[in-house]
Amino acid sequence: MNDAAFKVLEVLESHDSPLNGEFISNKLGISRSAVWKHVKELITMGYEITASHQEGYRLKKSSNRLLPYEVHKKLRTTFIGNMMRYYENTTSTNWVGKQLIREQDAEKLHGLVVIAEQQTGGIGRLGRSWVSPKGGIWATIVLKPKIPIDRVFMITMAGSIAIARAIRKEFDLGALIKWPNDIYIGDGKVAGLLLELSAEADRIHSCLLGIGVDVNVSPQDLSAIPNSVTSISAEVGHDVDRASLLARILKEFESRYLLLESGEYESIVREWKSLSCTLEHRVRINTLRTTFEGDAIDIDEYGALIIRKDNGKIERVIAGDCTQQ
Amino acid sequence: MNDAAFKVLEVLESHDSPLNGEFISNKLGISRSAVWKHVKELITMGYEITASHQEGYRLKKSSNRLLPYEVHKKLRTTFIGNMMRYYENTTSTNWVGKQLIREQDAEKLHGLVVIAEQQTGGIGRLGRSWVSPKGGIWATIVLKPKIPIDRVFMITMAGSIAIARAIRKEFDLGALIKWPNDIYIGDGKVAGLLLELSAEADRIHSCLLGIGVDVNVSPQDLSAIPNSVTSISAEVGHDVDRASLLARILKEFESRYLLLESGEYESIVREWKSLSCTLEHRVRINTLRTTFEGDAIDIDEYGALIIRKDNGKIERVIAGDCTQQ
Repeated sequence: MNDAAFKVLEVLESHDSPLNGEFISNKLGISRSAVWKHVKELITMGYEITASHQEGYRLKKSSNRLLPYEVHKKLRTTFIGNMMRYYENTTSTNWVGKQLIREQDAEKLHGLVVIAEQQTGGIGRLGRSWVSPKGGIWATIVLKPKIPIDRVFMITMAGSIAIARAIRKEFDLGALIKWPNDIYIGDGKVAGLLLELSAEADRIHSCLLGIGVDVNVSPQDLSAIPNSVTSISAEVGHDVDRASLLARILKEFESRYLLLESGEYESIVREWKSLSCTLEHRVRINTLRTTFEGDAIDIDEYGALIIRKDNGKIERVIAGDCTQQ
Repeated sequence: MNDAAFKVLEVLESHDSPLNGEFISNKLGISRSAVWKHVKELITMGYEITASHQEGYRLKKSSNRLLPYEVHKKLRTTFIGNMMRYYENTTSTNWVGKQLIREQDAEKLHGLVVIAEQQTGGIGRLGRSWVSPKGGIWATIVLKPKIPIDRVFMITMAGSIAIARAIRKEFDLGALIKWPNDIYIGDGKVAGLLLELSAEADRIHSCLLGIGVDVNVSPQDLSAIPNSVTSISAEVGHDVDRASLLARILKEFESRYLLLESGEYESIVREWKSLSCTLEHRVRINTLRTTFEGDAIDIDEYGALIIRKDNGKIERVIAGDCTQQ
């Protein structure tokens, strides 16, 4: 990111009428040729700016990329997203997060958000690939949580709540959470989360919460996915502002994360339950060791799904695939 | 490690009488000067070998180092320790394990044991330093466990059982386990474990079980440690064979680990309880959030300590410091 270019952008944004180069140049104390250089940079970043000798510069349309500058403008958090890293194209944002943690103590990266326009090697749970074309939100929140390791799944729960709430508030769509870590609108999956961590039994060294939301993505671009999928744009009928949605997700996440760190587990569980489309449904569970069916009757305060099998036996599942029937 | 040198060692070990260079040279199909070179290497590795023109070579005494060659001779496992890495001196064996995992898939390192004669930066729980002079067992077992993440503490439990059992069987000393991860003989701490892992909620990518045992270490060498400590040599009154002890620990660990992977949680918990010096004692607990006292009444099937506070309230603690009174 070029900070000086965004200074030029700020000036353009604060005026509805076209501005000549000299005005901007005087305002920022830079040369007219520097102004022109920055305008060209902004254009490469996706901003529509017209330039003419008569009129000067005019911002016609904001960038359609998910630039940190745009997210920051809308962000109302205290620490999540204060630092951001943006990539046009990367393997996966969780992968970037891992590299950052190797170079620097996770404590100093707490709250950092990695954003990618497109992932070439997006990953879902259990190493499955995650289709991540342009138009989605592909991001990772880097955290150093002060919670016991057996509560770690509650970070995914806080993230699920945040995405579902943000989609509901921004677009009035009935997003629900499918255990363990997907968000659905009706029958279509619209988002998912991937939590990775490095820890001792007593202490979490670092945690990466990857989030993927199909925002302005056409169902065709997701056709490689075997399950039923949807996107925000498919649901509302037009492309939407990704920066607003991401800013909202981060805000909603931050408030639940703070509850979690202060030990308010119950309120996370309560909210998760109120947004769940898994509870009270017939499910089929695949764990590392076994497969079985039953009724999903509850989720406990560690995020484990509680299932009543047909023989009446109760099973507690913290990790597994869940197919709803 | 020089494999050819150990071929020479094998020949020397298989004969009680001195062997001349020509005999060894013919037996191994190498030159007499190569034999002499390898004998010198073995001497640098701590083996006492006499060499004279009249008598030839004679192995007087085995190395006092914890060499993989010596551990392998006594090892009766199926996969733990098949691969070993040995260091005269390293930061910490868990640190070495982390480097190895970065370079190679943990699947391929499953069961590898890293051994160090001495650690310059040994670490205990919560980043505390761990004094690791010459004469101890400082080792790390690299694993890729197929168990749910909420069972991960049971790997520490399996390791604690293994160390306590091995000390009991080899030296007939009454070693007991202090929750969460120390081994005591009487009032003195003799060993500890440090589990580190990298994981998703569903899947453990890799796991490092660091073990430290004060074997042939004098109490003076451990005087930097504020708590009461002991060592095997201090307890039995003489130095002991570290290779036999490590081989025994690895064997005992492997059998409990296999139980764990096949879901036999209850038998691990039962054995842990039978070796515990924490249960039925008054304890003071420090967790991330709080400090309290009570009676340690049980351990649950995830390894969490169950405490009855004086007001009758039951607390479940998965991570924390425990001081016994």
